[in-house]
Amino acid sequence: MTPPSGSPAGATTGSTTGPSRGRAAVPVPELVERARRGDPRSVARLISLVEDASPALREVMAGLAPHTGHALVVGITGAPGVGKSTSTNALVARLREAGRRVGVLAVDPSSPFSGGALLGDRVRMGDHATDSDVFIRSMAARGHLGGLAWTTPQAIRVLDAAGFDVVLVETVGVGQSEVEVAALADTTLVLLAPGMGDGIQAAKAGILEIGDLYVVNKADRDGAGQVRRDLRNALALTDRPDAAWRPPILLTTAHDGGGIPEVVDALEEHQTWLRDSGELLRRRTRRARGEVEAIALTRLRERWSGLREGSELDDLAGRVARGETDPYAAADALLDDPSD
Amino acid sequence: MTPPSGSPAGATTGSTTGPSRGRAAVPVPELVERARRGDPRSVARLISLVEDASPALREVMAGLAPHTGHALVVGITGAPGVGKSTSTNALVARLREAGRRVGVLAVDPSSPFSGGALLGDRVRMGDHATDSDVFIRSMAARGHLGGLAWTTPQAIRVLDAAGFDVVLVETVGVGQSEVEVAALADTTLVLLAPGMGDGIQAAKAGILEIGDLYVVNKADRDGAGQVRRDLRNALALTDRPDAAWRPPILLTTAHDGGGIPEVVDALEEHQTWLRDSGELLRRRTRRARGEVEAIALTRLRERWSGLREGSELDDLAGRVARGETDPYAAADALLDDPSD
Repeated sequence: MTPPSGSPAGATTGSTTGPSRGRAAVPVPELVERARRGDPRSVARLISLVEDASPALREVMAGLAPHTGHALVVGITGAPGVGKSTSTNALVARLREAGRRVGVLAVDPSSPFSGGALLGDRVRMGDHATDSDVFIRSMAARGHLGGLAWTTPQAIRVLDAAGFDVVLVETVGVGQSEVEVAALADTTLVLLAPGMGDGIQAAKAGILEIGDLYVVNKADRDGAGQVRRDLRNALALTDRPDAAWRPPILLTTAHDGGGIPEVVDALEEHQTWLRDSGELLRRRTRRARGEVEAIALTRLRERWSGLREGSELDDLAGRVARGETDPYAAADALLDDPSD
Repeated sequence: MTPPSGSPAGATTGSTTGPSRGRAAVPVPELVERARRGDPRSVARLISLVEDASPALREVMAGLAPHTGHALVVGITGAPGVGKSTSTNALVARLREAGRRVGVLAVDPSSPFSGGALLGDRVRMGDHATDSDVFIRSMAARGHLGGLAWTTPQAIRVLDAAGFDVVLVETVGVGQSEVEVAALADTTLVLLAPGMGDGIQAAKAGILEIGDLYVVNKADRDGAGQVRRDLRNALALTDRPDAAWRPPILLTTAHDGGGIPEVVDALEEHQTWLRDSGELLRRRTRRARGEVEAIALTRLRERWSGLREGSELDDLAGRVARGETDPYAAADALLDDPSD
């Protein structure tokens, strides 16, 4: 079996997950089977394989693929301070009341670290800590292999195949991360709050295009109504990609669960619209496309770079350095090589 | 002729530079010839083609390649406030005294804008404004096609082929930009100054590996000697890639030219070492490698994405979205397609 992209040279084979972290190796099919039966340790292990870009990933993903497509993936984004964690926890509670199994990926787009956030995860779980139908995991987005675009869709795939009905992907809206999370989600929920500076100024242009659902949290504070009015006016002026769906703007007080049932209702309404309109498959195809492309480009880059001296790329680069050819012609030669 | 990567659909052909900016089209070979004869307008035009990712670039680069390899490329980096512009201007003056033709690329890694900085360029040129053997150009690094890694090496190539003896690439040391500029340069000059916070704290770990030459500017201020001592101690503890070259640490007062002749001497000493040791060709090969790879990956991404519906990537993504295959197998299929 060819090792997948991202595998270090000399890594363990793909047939087991390896004895990392002091645990005995579990064969991949067994691990996938246990995760599908709801074993949280196996789910956690599979997500660690994703984060580590394990050589076993290829086999993991092949094993998971037939079981994917059930979960509704909801992206939750908003500026720091709007109450994302509180809102996520309130949504989890409501979804559990409705009997749904819920997975949460809390993606920190600024952190290069991951996996070690277990204590934080436990603290975050709060009321859900003893509920085996809730799985919460913090992930770092800026890891070794291209961040959100690389690890998050694969972690979503793990939770989907493990039978979670809803996967909440929570990320702080800084830089491009809210656009990235929208690209990964079936439904994007944008959180705002009063007192975060002028409502629409704070609402960077990007969020007007990406939200399927807008929630003004901290609705018991002064200015929540104004944030909603400003947002409504701004949305009316925005040329959105899906004219057929008019995103609702809801008010919540997530700390006491106020308005949360209405948010869950709106999520379900959007899900129905996604399925009926065919938009769900279009979005998932777009997401898969980004995933396939990222894997293919990473693999090509590794192939070209090689670990050995004297790769074709090195030869071509030497010819460019000596002025014997130009970079475009060299790129042509690289792409035309049948060994690629 | 196939348009190069980055060309917009329906762009003008590659055989002329197009009538952009209201000027009549000049055939590429003529433009290259004029630039090589030292016409600054033609040099500026070629760099604009680089920044615009013009379809003519492929032909431009093929025309330039045989004339490249002469210029010494010096990267100049340092934190905001250390005196990069002043130092660059002082170096230009000294190099001109020695009869060298000098090109300067001032790369702003944070700006998405470029080309329009002409007034700024003229102000910057100062004493050199009427000197046709000095060419100064501001460039934005975070443009459409991957920043420094994409446009800067091609702009260096233009100046090199146009017969400049030295190309100074000045960039502010924020984020990864100082590591990026080191990857593009034959010689990397790291600027420091006293009063920028603790000398070594300010000297982020990265700069200890990348400098071929360290310059403590503002040497007339308190603390310059301490910055030099701290830096020397830190360098002694650093495991540098080229153990055969011990980077000197020089003191300057760039505003009055103090110490600048010694910096130019050190640059020439490093250049001699680069040539004698074979390191020059190694560095240029590494630089060309990054360039070729960036062009190839961009072209592949465009090819896969296609502007048309129903590309192979779309088909594969649809299969992944429906759970019929997994992303790794889809990436394999994409890479194995003979049409790629």
